[in-house]
Amino acid sequence: MIIVLGPDHQEEDLQRIIRRLEDLGLRAHISKGEHRTIVGAIGDERILNELPVESFPGVESVLPILKPYKLVSREMKPDDTVIQVNGSAIGGPQIQVMAGPCAVESREVLEEIADALVPSGVHFLRGGAFKPRTSPYAFQGWGEKGLKYLAAVRERLGMMIVTELMDPRDTVLVCKYADIIQIGTRNMQNFRLLTEVGNIDKPVILKRGLCATIKEFLMSAEYIMAQGNEKVILCERGIRTFETETRNTLDISAVPLLKKLTHLPVIVDPSHAVGRADLVSAVSKAAIAAGADGLLVEVHVRPEEAMSDGPQSLRPAAFKTMVEECRRVAEAVGRSM
Amino acid sequence: MIIVLGPDHQEEDLQRIIRRLEDLGLRAHISKGEHRTIVGAIGDERILNELPVESFPGVESVLPILKPYKLVSREMKPDDTVIQVNGSAIGGPQIQVMAGPCAVESREVLEEIADALVPSGVHFLRGGAFKPRTSPYAFQGWGEKGLKYLAAVRERLGMMIVTELMDPRDTVLVCKYADIIQIGTRNMQNFRLLTEVGNIDKPVILKRGLCATIKEFLMSAEYIMAQGNEKVILCERGIRTFETETRNTLDISAVPLLKKLTHLPVIVDPSHAVGRADLVSAVSKAAIAAGADGLLVEVHVRPEEAMSDGPQSLRPAAFKTMVEECRRVAEAVGRSM
Amino acid sequence: MIIVLGPDHQEEDLQRIIRRLEDLGLRAHISKGEHRTIVGAIGDERILNELPVESFPGVESVLPILKPYKLVSREMKPDDTVIQVNGSAIGGPQIQVMAGPCAVESREVLEEIADALVPSGVHFLRGGAFKPRTSPYAFQGWGEKGLKYLAAVRERLGMMIVTELMDPRDTVLVCKYADIIQIGTRNMQNFRLLTEVGNIDKPVILKRGLCATIKEFLMSAEYIMAQGNEKVILCERGIRTFETETRNTLDISAVPLLKKLTHLPVIVDPSHAVGRADLVSAVSKAAIAAGADGLLVEVHVRPEEAMSDGPQSLRPAAFKTMVEECRRVAEAVGRSM
Amino acid sequence: MIIVLGPDHQEEDLQRIIRRLEDLGLRAHISKGEHRTIVGAIGDERILNELPVESFPGVESVLPILKPYKLVSREMKPDDTVIQVNGSAIGGPQIQVMAGPCAVESREVLEEIADALVPSGVHFLRGGAFKPRTSPYAFQGWGEKGLKYLAAVRERLGMMIVTELMDPRDTVLVCKYADIIQIGTRNMQNFRLLTEVGNIDKPVILKRGLCATIKEFLMSAEYIMAQGNEKVILCERGIRTFETETRNTLDISAVPLLKKLTHLPVIVDPSHAVGRADLVSAVSKAAIAAGADGLLVEVHVRPEEAMSDGPQSLRPAAFKTMVEECRRVAEAVGRSM
Repeated sequence: MIIVLGPDHQEEDLQRIIRRLEDLGLRAHISKGEHRTIVGAIGDERILNELPVESFPGVESVLPILKPYKLVSREMKPDDTVIQVNGSAIGGPQIQVMAGPCAVESREVLEEIADALVPSGVHFLRGGAFKPRTSPYAFQGWGEKGLKYLAAVRERLGMMIVTELMDPRDTVLVCKYADIIQIGTRNMQNFRLLTEVGNIDKPVILKRGLCATIKEFLMSAEYIMAQGNEKVILCERGIRTFETETRNTLDISAVPLLKKLTHLPVIVDPSHAVGRADLVSAVSKAAIAAGADGLLVEVHVRPEEAMSDGPQSLRPAAFKTMVEECRRVAEAVGRSM
Repeated sequence: MIIVLGPDHQEEDLQRIIRRLEDLGLRAHISKGEHRTIVGAIGDERILNELPVESFPGVESVLPILKPYKLVSREMKPDDTVIQVNGSAIGGPQIQVMAGPCAVESREVLEEIADALVPSGVHFLRGGAFKPRTSPYAFQGWGEKGLKYLAAVRERLGMMIVTELMDPRDTVLVCKYADIIQIGTRNMQNFRLLTEVGNIDKPVILKRGLCATIKEFLMSAEYIMAQGNEKVILCERGIRTFETETRNTLDISAVPLLKKLTHLPVIVDPSHAVGRADLVSAVSKAAIAAGADGLLVEVHVRPEEAMSDGPQSLRPAAFKTMVEECRRVAEAVGRSM
Repeated sequence: MIIVLGPDHQEEDLQRIIRRLEDLGLRAHISKGEHRTIVGAIGDERILNELPVESFPGVESVLPILKPYKLVSREMKPDDTVIQVNGSAIGGPQIQVMAGPCAVESREVLEEIADALVPSGVHFLRGGAFKPRTSPYAFQGWGEKGLKYLAAVRERLGMMIVTELMDPRDTVLVCKYADIIQIGTRNMQNFRLLTEVGNIDKPVILKRGLCATIKEFLMSAEYIMAQGNEKVILCERGIRTFETETRNTLDISAVPLLKKLTHLPVIVDPSHAVGRADLVSAVSKAAIAAGADGLLVEVHVRPEEAMSDGPQSLRPAAFKTMVEECRRVAEAVGRSM
Repeated sequence: MIIVLGPDHQEEDLQRIIRRLEDLGLRAHISKGEHRTIVGAIGDERILNELPVESFPGVESVLPILKPYKLVSREMKPDDTVIQVNGSAIGGPQIQVMAGPCAVESREVLEEIADALVPSGVHFLRGGAFKPRTSPYAFQGWGEKGLKYLAAVRERLGMMIVTELMDPRDTVLVCKYADIIQIGTRNMQNFRLLTEVGNIDKPVILKRGLCATIKEFLMSAEYIMAQGNEKVILCERGIRTFETETRNTLDISAVPLLKKLTHLPVIVDPSHAVGRADLVSAVSKAAIAAGADGLLVEVHVRPEEAMSDGPQSLRPAAFKTMVEECRRVAEAVGRSM
């Protein structure tokens, strides 16, 4: 950490900072310039992250040198983390597609959708039994009944289940049915929920918050890993910007950037990113070209009847075409799908 | 709701939409223009909000006419909601100041801070016993011990307690000690938590999410009111933008805008908005000039030792000056403080 | 255009609006709902775009139905515009790569860079002779001398020249040397400059403004076309968001969206979008997978000596690898390169 | 400037950097930590701002210590700059109000508006003769004819004229009539125009760009001052964010922040910031409470007939009330108006 003292600082301010650093087991390295005096804190600066160094008398600004995360960083673990789920690997050479409706609506519709995914070779069925909805008057999901419908599909078709956990009180229940737990965008900084899924032994898809920086995103993954759960899958799903033609703005450069900064698998949710079915295929191909390890896509047999997110759901035929096109891109970048 | 049909729509698309609207008890009003055909849905369009109308065949776009919220809207209740807390009114002519440390750090420091607030006439002490922290390695609050320290101050000085609830499992515990429950920025769309505080009989300060629109902010307040709790206080605390010189960007126009759209009290948290103590006073005065009903300010006796948010905490002397300056502005706009 | 009257409007407000519309040759279509009265303006609503309809007494809000642009829209011209430049087509099946240094620095360096681009099959050399720089103390470009260096490369290697025009007073000069005129991000709404290049007979690359919406971007293209120049190439180059790990955020969904809304060619500048050389290749592949018609890439033989934008410039070897990888993606989506 | 070398850097990378710094007359101060080696460049680091230090081999990141601007900084000139215009001071204890229509529409309407401003004690009339319009089909202003109408009002009522310059080719013409030149939002980084007004002897209002950071804003002011014109007035007018209920988001904390960083006067344009007349008064009071030196407000006698920006224009009666309310706030913060 670099501590910059302003032009008006006193000698005692400097001495106080030096003592404080030494008390913490760090060494202070002083460099007096023409305009500013600079103190470099030598040692593991992460100790300092939680100190209000900017409030120390005489301090003008503080510049961190090291990243605030550790377990998730590639510096810590250079090799890719590959997560095995029932024979399918996430983060390896094969790109995984997770697809299904936004919400589990009824047993019949869910079965119909799942059947329609089979020809595209989908191994992971997504579907929400607990739904975070902006309006208190909107459909909130079927709860355990929905989880049972998902389990029935797994039983029948062998697909693995990806479903969202919204409330720490439902952890045991959701884990009973899910193969992969999803933490939604709005809960990326629900730290109690992160701690909860840090203590289970299931893979967790962590969706990036609507306006979370890459650093905050990785800190939330660090929360989960710090509890002991190393099976974290990062999901870029669009950030909020000034542009309103699309629901959100897919941060495509986040994909290669995350692959550099962390060893964890990175997938993309094109459906929430763009919010309109007609753009999903193009950005899915882009995600794969940029290095994503998987896709999380909304598919519905009748989007015009969907209980949520209809406008961004693909019909099975469009989905099938998309998977074929994505496969060609995957091969062009040396992956399979 | 206005439903716009694209230039290529079929007559049967139109007929299907008309039937669908009529099934829901709405009337369809058709207007065929040169370039587009437009269907107006007459009746309470909120029924339509959860339908994927944009996915109906032939539909190009959908334009809502009514606001999606109801209970919070001024159209529903023209008079200001004034919330009484132990003899102090929030939302009335008097502007309320809530002040204190970010986190409850120790009994001694808390008492010291509270004593320092007395000369400024503060009736509400803020302080977190449960702290949402970006890093899993940072101080997370003292939990019930912290709540007890807060209660001891109330006992001794008669100040009311404002403290944060982060987890639905802590509701009973936090309610036992708090006079006002705070829902933090990162939990503005933690819908389970909103439902929880909708079922208690305490005032709730709902902080605006980092990138929540005014509409989403009001929908979250609607969640609480829909459960029966009408004592909701809205808190603007800065939104995330591209500007990095300040921690966030205080959306000052949100204050008069919210006062127009809703009957609920609106307060401002200048400390989190700017993130640096030297700007807190100026934006506090601005908040009051713009019509805010109160302030939520971080104060610490020794910011350089604060366990969180030191750089944005005011020292008691600066806080006292600020309150005096704010009082003059309050009087200039016809309020007291 | 839909004009929504508030609950308190007077009958005379409605009558006044009807008369106003009729005076403009439009028909008014009235639909009285439970909560609001709605007036649909039938006819070419673009006449209304410049009227302050929201200020008419009784009006609550105004919802446009038609897009404000005309000449650039695909509705107007369903077929792709393909721009021929000296035998190379932009907007056709072949993806074009435009590459070179940010600024023309010296004749020697420019020649060296151009030579290094030849093995990758580049037909378009980019390089700025006039540079918009954030600091008045930074290198502002060599002006005509730089243009002459560019022309010398064209002479020797047959590459076409892409260079920026910043000032309407330089139009004749820049056109004397350039094959394609570039309008930079900061000038996307320099309407006098747009008018200027609307009156020349050269292709124009219009870069999207740092915080321009898709609609504003297309309106700026409309400015150029409205003067008679139909050879407009749109360039997505990243927008400004809260994320600071990358220089800007590439709006990848803008590519398929623009291809839907307009018939004009769409290219991507990955270098300015990410601002760091190590991510350029990944987002370039993404751009092609998403449907871009070309790339505008910064390449420098010695980025550590570049007079501007060194950190985002690729070295020739990395550029060559990137082009090869991009070519495979291009073929996977049915294009050549 | 702090140069951080990555964990894999070579000793020769370090030596090369040291030599490079010394060649530029700077001293290098090395500090080798556990995880990183850090080089501090001692001397005037602004020499380094234009070097691609991030591209030097071995470099991981670069952290500037000094601000990139000089002439505009308060460090350079601690006292407030007060600009005298014909007997009225901008930047002194008195707050100045500049008001008038967005565009000069006709002689009659302009005269009518100016007459309506007299009772509020307005000394500065704003009005555009050259209008930057998003649409090529919209009214672009009357040019010199409009300037003459403005001059006629000055003649008759003694008001000073504030009007926009859009094109370097119009500098002489606009200066002939204007007392204060306005550089619009979209031209904040039109560097040729900045250079142009840096060479004239008239005060310049520089409006902040829609997504310009505070640093970029000050760098544009530096452009003007670097040419010799010291009469620069900064105008905060709202930035673009995700919020769409208001036209832009007024960055209220920019006011006290700019007053700290620079000695130049800071005014606020509440009309463009919010884009709706009903919020203008509240944010104007906020601007004054936050420390603004003036206001730039749109006023029109009949907003429903305005040729541009009608919805955000105040009627004279509302403007008069606003000025009275603002005056009370000004007095509360120790200013006059």
